[in-house]
Amino acid sequence: MKKENENLIVPGFMANGIHAGIKEDGRKDLSLIFSDRPASAAGVFTTNAFKAAPVILDMERLKTGEAQAILANSGNANAATGTQGLNDSRAMAKAAANAMKISEKQVLVASTGIIGKRLPIGKINKRIPALVRGLNPSGFPDAQEGIMTTDQFPKIEYRKRVISGKEISLCGIAKGAGMIEPGMATMLSFVMTDAAVDSETLRRCLVSGVDESFNAISVDGCMSTNDTVILLANGRAGNKSLTGRSRDLSAFRDMLSEILRALAISIVRDGEGATKVIGIRVEEARTREEAKKVAFTIARSNLVKAAFFGQDPNWGRIISAIGASGVALSVGDVRLYFDQIPLFRQGRGVEGNEKKLSEVMKKEYIQVLVKLGTGKEIFSAYASDLTYDYIRINAHYHT
Amino acid sequence: MKKENENLIVPGFMANGIHAGIKEDGRKDLSLIFSDRPASAAGVFTTNAFKAAPVILDMERLKTGEAQAILANSGNANAATGTQGLNDSRAMAKAAANAMKISEKQVLVASTGIIGKRLPIGKINKRIPALVRGLNPSGFPDAQEGIMTTDQFPKIEYRKRVISGKEISLCGIAKGAGMIEPGMATMLSFVMTDAAVDSETLRRCLVSGVDESFNAISVDGCMSTNDTVILLANGRAGNKSLTGRSRDLSAFRDMLSEILRALAISIVRDGEGATKVIGIRVEEARTREEAKKVAFTIARSNLVKAAFFGQDPNWGRIISAIGASGVALSVGDVRLYFDQIPLFRQGRGVEGNEKKLSEVMKKEYIQVLVKLGTGKEIFSAYASDLTYDYIRINAHYHT
Repeated sequence: MKKENENLIVPGFMANGIHAGIKEDGRKDLSLIFSDRPASAAGVFTTNAFKAAPVILDMERLKTGEAQAILANSGNANAATGTQGLNDSRAMAKAAANAMKISEKQVLVASTGIIGKRLPIGKINKRIPALVRGLNPSGFPDAQEGIMTTDQFPKIEYRKRVISGKEISLCGIAKGAGMIEPGMATMLSFVMTDAAVDSETLRRCLVSGVDESFNAISVDGCMSTNDTVILLANGRAGNKSLTGRSRDLSAFRDMLSEILRALAISIVRDGEGATKVIGIRVEEARTREEAKKVAFTIARSNLVKAAFFGQDPNWGRIISAIGASGVALSVGDVRLYFDQIPLFRQGRGVEGNEKKLSEVMKKEYIQVLVKLGTGKEIFSAYASDLTYDYIRINAHYHT
Repeated sequence: MKKENENLIVPGFMANGIHAGIKEDGRKDLSLIFSDRPASAAGVFTTNAFKAAPVILDMERLKTGEAQAILANSGNANAATGTQGLNDSRAMAKAAANAMKISEKQVLVASTGIIGKRLPIGKINKRIPALVRGLNPSGFPDAQEGIMTTDQFPKIEYRKRVISGKEISLCGIAKGAGMIEPGMATMLSFVMTDAAVDSETLRRCLVSGVDESFNAISVDGCMSTNDTVILLANGRAGNKSLTGRSRDLSAFRDMLSEILRALAISIVRDGEGATKVIGIRVEEARTREEAKKVAFTIARSNLVKAAFFGQDPNWGRIISAIGASGVALSVGDVRLYFDQIPLFRQGRGVEGNEKKLSEVMKKEYIQVLVKLGTGKEIFSAYASDLTYDYIRINAHYHT
């Protein structure tokens, strides 16, 4: 990704990522994203009842629909840290605001890493001046590195497109559901654009985009205390501000959805120990909610996930998951396909495709298609397989 | 277990288990339980929409509240087999009924094993005369062997107690959520008693007993097409028939619950690749449903299960699961304990117990206690840990 730095520029934005000493191994652990003017801002956060301090702070600050910077650290989640944690989140935002000479209310924060330990606020504050000094237009890859934990590869997506006669850039970075010892899987994603979008419209675009991307993936069915997606739109492109009524809104929304979905799938691909991405598309559902329920029952089934790791075309486990989803259906109407090969219909398995199937099972991306036969609604989810490495990564860390 | 055969007698019942050639490795695969008179009968079955043929047949037959025999096979689940499967279940019941000289409607059936393949009905019918000839009062262990699949050890529980002045015997056998290649986890359990209990009362006792036992365990959160629990009460003890109004009903219900819970925990202990049983008790919930929801969100968390395998006292993952359960709570009121050692309270981790905790984490049974602080209701669930062997067992079978 590094060599494409020049292509990852969003006018008006600068970014940086450095090592502040929160991670012990010398890797980058402190990131900053800065817009040269206040941007429309929206966020989607974990619905976990135990929200980490930075999540609580951002939810409060985003009520204004405006922000100018995101300060994020890895190595410590600042979760389950009580009032002290909230004070620490505020303090790091304030230190960065001072160094950037902007209002502290304009600074959002995010943390990922160890849970239940106090943030090393001294180390962070000490390095903030250097972090701010290093801000530069090509800094998104560094900022991405600074939020990585057990991620095996960087996750950056970039798109440029003409909307309303103006060239619009969008860059998204993410870190995956890597296990944060001894904490839990956290995903963070920050998306920056120079489009002008009013903040309420921005919020709606983000919510619907997240629903079909980060909320459609399952690595292990666990939701962290820190999950955060933030979208900043600084208007530097000079387009007429997009609102709910704009004809060109759908072009912007599509571009955003593409970025979010690509980031989400790369998180699945990098799922702990994962060797495969399984796309699970449920069609012919009575409602979208039912399609989603079926898709997630499959996506979360350890039996299904382990079978894909073993390259076993075990349709019985998928049929069983469909049946266990609680969605009303008629067994004889359900059909199941792997990459277009029929496996189940009319209440029983389809024979004779064993050879083709064994080829499909070797692939790194496999499309599971379920047709429920109860309606017309659709939902797609993405799951990783369940592997020895998942156990290794998640069992063998001792506090 | 074999040497205790003499103690596993329930008056009026005989049983047997033999090899009929459904399993290829020569192990027992066909079992029969027979009562010398029609017994009150009740069943609880999978709620999976894809119900296997024997489940469909039993649900129909149990409407009478009476049965005299259970014929069960392992090695083939007779699931996803359409009309043919239903005919085969009927045929095996009929063959056994003829050999026992009882009405075929009195015979219940159960199957566990490979899914989507036709039952080898010829092999089964051929061996039924020998199966019936071998029926004997000490045959429960053989019958248990005949339903085992990947179970590592037999699961038999037996209790004898005086109720209403009569000695009442109860014997339960079960097979665990072992993966049935290439199918799915199935649990079967048959419980026999010589108590006299009217069939509606029997049904209620079974439903509430299962709710706190087989429905309180999580090996992998997957529900099979074949899950079956059947309870037969033949009245040979000569007690006055127990009804909903009987003073002594609670003694019987307790005895039954004990058996069901012990069988359920042994299934968890024998969970695929499991090294530990984790008891998860949720107290101070607003409703029993909320307690159950929290308990199961923890029990099903791969992160939690992998941490226990790694002997890592990772309370952060449990706190995160509690928060993700969707149950309303106040973070500051939640308390968490492992075997009485406090880990979390007042919104943060409790420090200083590391040494004691590391001892607890080595145990084979660990009690997790969550106090929600929102009410007075309680639920207990039981989970296995998630291990390399789970992956090995569930990934590495190729059809």
